[in-house]
Amino acid sequence: MKYCSDCGNPVSLKIPSGDTRERHVCDHCGTIHYQNPRIIAGTLPVVGDKVLLCRRAIEPRLGFWTLPAGFMENGETTQQAAARETIEEADARVDIQGLYMVFNLPQISQVYIFFRADVIDGQYGVGVESLESRLFEEHEIPWNELAFPTIGRALKYYFSDRQSGQFPVRVEDITYPRKR
Amino acid sequence: MKYCSDCGNPVSLKIPSGDTRERHVCDHCGTIHYQNPRIIAGTLPVVGDKVLLCRRAIEPRLGFWTLPAGFMENGETTQQAAARETIEEADARVDIQGLYMVFNLPQISQVYIFFRADVIDGQYGVGVESLESRLFEEHEIPWNELAFPTIGRALKYYFSDRQSGQFPVRVEDITYPRKR
Repeated sequence: MKYCSDCGNPVSLKIPSGDTRERHVCDHCGTIHYQNPRIIAGTLPVVGDKVLLCRRAIEPRLGFWTLPAGFMENGETTQQAAARETIEEADARVDIQGLYMVFNLPQISQVYIFFRADVIDGQYGVGVESLESRLFEEHEIPWNELAFPTIGRALKYYFSDRQSGQFPVRVEDITYPRKR
Repeated sequence: MKYCSDCGNPVSLKIPSGDTRERHVCDHCGTIHYQNPRIIAGTLPVVGDKVLLCRRAIEPRLGFWTLPAGFMENGETTQQAAARETIEEADARVDIQGLYMVFNLPQISQVYIFFRADVIDGQYGVGVESLESRLFEEHEIPWNELAFPTIGRALKYYFSDRQSGQFPVRVEDITYPRKR
């Protein structure tokens, strides 16, 4: 951020009065521009004993497999965002079953929120953001070709929890190794 | 948003190619400026059978009682944000006990995330954002002087759940009556 989105004049990084963190503050009109973490909402879509994954048609991680998930939009609930992303990526309508995973990714200021979901009538396709979609049994999951650490973590918990039929909500931090 | 924060030129509302929603797009450099929901992280801080509430020293709802909560910052986990807010508003350090409430507020594009928390050594004070802090037993809660609908909802669930000792994670939507 270099310019004020309210008045178009340059901004500077400074700690506003009464604050403890540097913010982008407009040198001209004084507006403080806060930046906050973003929510990635998604589903773990299930058909019988299989999980629906999509192969990404867009960067980052083009060509890798993912659970349907993406940036929550203004005006949505987290469930609506998760269901919308499942349509956009897997062309699948879902019944949301319940909150399942909350992953903190503080290094990139994201919070992933995954819901378990049943694919309605088992119908799915290839959404505009995907190269292909496929149902996977546990032993078929392409563990080395998953797009993000959150995806593998969610899938591992799911297959483990499925044995007991209990799906407790989990909150976990995922930190990436620091780049040199 | 009127000006591009990257180059300072005017932005227009338009639907970018491949998108389905209006965004602020720079007429000059083409940067798309996304706006996303924000997370309010907080705690339900407990000392024995009492809950710690703070009376707000800042708008909105100055003078009303609240659970400590506020905007999550970049670089934090949700738990860190909740614990930080509890220090800022109630001068209390807490042990986070677990995720408790996720409230969607789609009309104002916010997601509240509350954790149950134990106040360490029962020590608290008055944070910089509060007029006073106080421990309340259930029958003492000032139900008509709570700052936000999320606060009353969280407290009602807490006192109800406490009877069974089970505190399931709840995800709920809170919608305000539309203003005329």
